Amino acid sequence: MTSVDFASIRQDFPVLHQVVNDEPLVYLDNAATTQKPKQVLEVLADYYQKDNANVHRGVHTLSERATARYEAARQTVADFIHAKTAREVIFTRGTTTSLNWVAQFAQDLLQPGDEVVLSIMEHHSNIIPWQEACRKTGAQLRYVYLKDGQLDVAGLKELLNHKTKFVSLAHVSNVLGSVAPVKEIAELVHQVGAYLVVDGAQSTPHMAINVQDLDVDFFAFSGHKMLGPTGIGVLYGKEELLQKMNPVEFGGEMIEFVSKQTASWKDLPWKFEAGTPNIAGAIGLAAAIDYLTDLGMDAIEAHMVELMNYIFPKLQAIPSLSIVGSHDVAKRTGLIAFNLDGLHPHDVATALDYEGVAVRAGHHCAQPLLAHLQLPSTVRASFYIYNSKADCDKLVEAILKTKEYFHGTL
Amino acid sequence: MTSVDFASIRQDFPVLHQVVNDEPLVYLDNAATTQKPKQVLEVLADYYQKDNANVHRGVHTLSERATARYEAARQTVADFIHAKTAREVIFTRGTTTSLNWVAQFAQDLLQPGDEVVLSIMEHHSNIIPWQEACRKTGAQLRYVYLKDGQLDVAGLKELLNHKTKFVSLAHVSNVLGSVAPVKEIAELVHQVGAYLVVDGAQSTPHMAINVQDLDVDFFAFSGHKMLGPTGIGVLYGKEELLQKMNPVEFGGEMIEFVSKQTASWKDLPWKFEAGTPNIAGAIGLAAAIDYLTDLGMDAIEAHMVELMNYIFPKLQAIPSLSIVGSHDVAKRTGLIAFNLDGLHPHDVATALDYEGVAVRAGHHCAQPLLAHLQLPSTVRASFYIYNSKADCDKLVEAILKTKEYFHGTL
Repeated sequence: MTSVDFASIRQDFPVLHQVVNDEPLVYLDNAATTQKPKQVLEVLADYYQKDNANVHRGVHTLSERATARYEAARQTVADFIHAKTAREVIFTRGTTTSLNWVAQFAQDLLQPGDEVVLSIMEHHSNIIPWQEACRKTGAQLRYVYLKDGQLDVAGLKELLNHKTKFVSLAHVSNVLGSVAPVKEIAELVHQVGAYLVVDGAQSTPHMAINVQDLDVDFFAFSGHKMLGPTGIGVLYGKEELLQKMNPVEFGGEMIEFVSKQTASWKDLPWKFEAGTPNIAGAIGLAAAIDYLTDLGMDAIEAHMVELMNYIFPKLQAIPSLSIVGSHDVAKRTGLIAFNLDGLHPHDVATALDYEGVAVRAGHHCAQPLLAHLQLPSTVRASFYIYNSKADCDKLVEAILKTKEYFHGTL
Repeated sequence: MTSVDFASIRQDFPVLHQVVNDEPLVYLDNAATTQKPKQVLEVLADYYQKDNANVHRGVHTLSERATARYEAARQTVADFIHAKTAREVIFTRGTTTSLNWVAQFAQDLLQPGDEVVLSIMEHHSNIIPWQEACRKTGAQLRYVYLKDGQLDVAGLKELLNHKTKFVSLAHVSNVLGSVAPVKEIAELVHQVGAYLVVDGAQSTPHMAINVQDLDVDFFAFSGHKMLGPTGIGVLYGKEELLQKMNPVEFGGEMIEFVSKQTASWKDLPWKFEAGTPNIAGAIGLAAAIDYLTDLGMDAIEAHMVELMNYIFPKLQAIPSLSIVGSHDVAKRTGLIAFNLDGLHPHDVATALDYEGVAVRAGHHCAQPLLAHLQLPSTVRASFYIYNSKADCDKLVEAILKTKEYFHGTL
């Protein structure tokens, strides 16, 4: 039991109170994107209605207010992930951009024969940028695989050697729901002198993050997967690494001085933020963090554990339903990918939608993992703070109806 | 006289109805960013409260609705700039990202000895990416200068030769307010077989844009400078060029197939849109375009001409005020950079802020132009649709008060 009343927070999410296909909406596609509480929408509206101006450039009142709110948002993010300083927090378009920028940095460092290590469960956004970095530099891309539906840490240890320069891993798999032991991995990675990059897109919404304690070198996440607006994300990097890293985009506000043929850069974090940033997005993300912090990340984690403990055995009990990944619910976060024997995941997702239940079907941007698991695609139900046991019951009920419907028509 | 009642539209902009330093706000920093009408804010709220979901990936109802709205926004943009097809419209974070991406494309094409031509009045976002492209490829960066405060087209013609591969120019200067004759320039540029890239950040808010008629190869602009949200912009490119162009960011939703070592890309426009896009931003930009289109771009242009014709002589009449750029008001759009003899632009902007008038002071991200003009910085007043002759009067009055104040204290 958590002390926070998670049932009552549904009222903060207007989008949830609607009927889809004559059924009350049950939104279980949170690993793709989460809904936004009215507190976040109100902050966005408040910013645009009171303070909207461009940042860092103006001496007028609105510009000063907008700059103060934007930089306060950066500090909110820094506090939330326990960065040493707000200079280590770069606002980006999202996790994808953040990971691409780190892989660009890698292009400056990698030599032929160097190695980059990924896991087989990475999201495409944490694979393709590294394929490009390796292709351009002659470095080798190596993969660590699974053990009991989790990252095979012993296998990772065997892969690591003096040629390893970057290890880039998902904190939480968006298909398996598994959690990588990042702190332990960081120690292994640093022992061989490599950098550890962590894709926190699926972990940051679900657990307290302490980048200093985890000792990660880079950490990426997105606002829209944790109650924030679309179009805003974060790249955290250790200050000494961000100092070494070249800007990836060039333009206004990231420069110290521009002449006709050359330019020099501002200090951190601004050297990475060329052009007008997503000011409202950053402020909205900070509002989302405030909302999550008010609930408490530990309470959120406990709520998700409660839901998973509730639904997992119910799904396991459905004949012909197979769950992807570990069957030890204690080793999973709030998402479950599954298949129903003989039914195409897209048909299942469509049928569930008829019952008002929104789930995802497909490869979940993790084709190498699905190929490894010999699955063309899966259904995925992913939960968040506003989901309830009633939502779990509805999902189970809708799955049973789906089975019944297709067996009648097959 | 325009037939649209521009006075009445002020009521659509809540932010304008506030008091700053005990004076009613007069917002004249529109070249930095514009305010947002409540119609745009309502669309943002409507999207988040009814349809928010991730796009392209889901079979559930909300995802289908979000995808439909996102792709409809793309069509709205395509129609607005008269692109041949919506496939030519790439959503980016803003003009800066758009221009960086074109300069990345240039890196794949440029050879040592090739030439890239910019004008001396470019914004840093249209300079530094080209410095980087030239630095990495050994190409030469050449500059065209001014004639009577306008782009020297004859000078450009002299610069162009068979070595010229890219010409990248501001449609409207963010300091001079001058308008480049893009259609005429496109012909010259294409005669030598080069590509024309146009920074439309300052033109798109102010005039009807027809990329086909202008015959530009690439065209970049930002949502936030034309009533849209922050964090969204557009890169237009001719389809055959976008086909040739490699993606710049890699990740989910831009792929056709990903294996462990390689990946292939989706068709246009999605191959450029890795990861979750700024969905709400795109939809908000479309709402801004709808708002502008309802007013009519011709009416907007006429309104700005009316304001400029009204204020220009009043500013010219102020002793010791010097206007930067052409003194032919017919050759300018809705912004005026100026200085007051003996006063630092930052002090002027601060003093104007005391009077409730928001203007910008600085180098306006155009240091090479200011160096060329031998100006360390300037004050800039920039106007938009909700500004009025009363705002012009207030600016003039505040300038006169500022002069009086400083002459009293100097």
